[in-house]
Amino acid sequence: MKLDLRKILTAGALAAALLSVPAAQAAGDPNEAIKYRQMVMSSIGAHIGAIAAVLKGKVPHGGHILGHAKAMHAASHMLDDIFPPDSGVGETRVKPEIWQKPVEFKAAVTAFQKTSAVLVEAARSGDTGAIGAAIGDVGKSCGGCHKPFRKPKE
Amino acid sequence: MKLDLRKILTAGALAAALLSVPAAQAAGDPNEAIKYRQMVMSSIGAHIGAIAAVLKGKVPHGGHILGHAKAMHAASHMLDDIFPPDSGVGETRVKPEIWQKPVEFKAAVTAFQKTSAVLVEAARSGDTGAIGAAIGDVGKSCGGCHKPFRKPKE
Repeated sequence: MKLDLRKILTAGALAAALLSVPAAQAAGDPNEAIKYRQMVMSSIGAHIGAIAAVLKGKVPHGGHILGHAKAMHAASHMLDDIFPPDSGVGETRVKPEIWQKPVEFKAAVTAFQKTSAVLVEAARSGDTGAIGAAIGDVGKSCGGCHKPFRKPKE
Repeated sequence: MKLDLRKILTAGALAAALLSVPAAQAAGDPNEAIKYRQMVMSSIGAHIGAIAAVLKGKVPHGGHILGHAKAMHAASHMLDDIFPPDSGVGETRVKPEIWQKPVEFKAAVTAFQKTSAVLVEAARSGDTGAIGAAIGDVGKSCGGCHKPFRKPKE
């Protein structure tokens, strides 16, 4: 077998280049990170708004609650990944406190992951009272992150 | 046991009232139906936009694709319920053709349910080529409903 020196060198150069890039930068363009985060957040907002509309009796789609709850819970776990440290500047309402208080931020995200997991179980049971209580806790956990870590609208 | 005539009469009157309301109206306020539909559609748009961002390499969240795909597929089945016949007037871009051509509309919705199911399976397999092909077919099935049944933006 003939050694392909060019390939080896290229691969080596590529690996070196990748290693020299800080993690946050390697994660990609901060503006794209912001746009992606807003899509995830927008999906969460749509799913929780939809559940609230059903619970308030505005629409008759009780059978949709579980689907919305599962989607929201899945998205809650995406939050672990979508706040790279360089994504605080630009068209975003994120506060720098997210990176200054990582323990508090992590706790707030974990709270949402837990309340949305409880909501999924409540939706699975079909118990309207449990679903109502769970969505209330989900709402509180949204605020538990948005209040300290998101700027108000200008 | 004493018969509670008042309760019986009230229940009877309520049942009669409900029976006299056409199905579409019983489903609730058309404006609420429109708002709910827009939340479901908004969640679908956010999930597909998020998957596209990952596939284009704009963000590094390959691990999120399955969650987005499952959420979108669950929402695809909500489409069966969210076009009550009285929800064509108001702040909506829905075309009357939805109710004039129910067979074609149903076929378009079914197409999206199938393409999004294929996307879920592709995401589960982790095969990037399969995911790329599946998202292309999902996009086509979005257009397959939006073109004939949704008005363009004004």
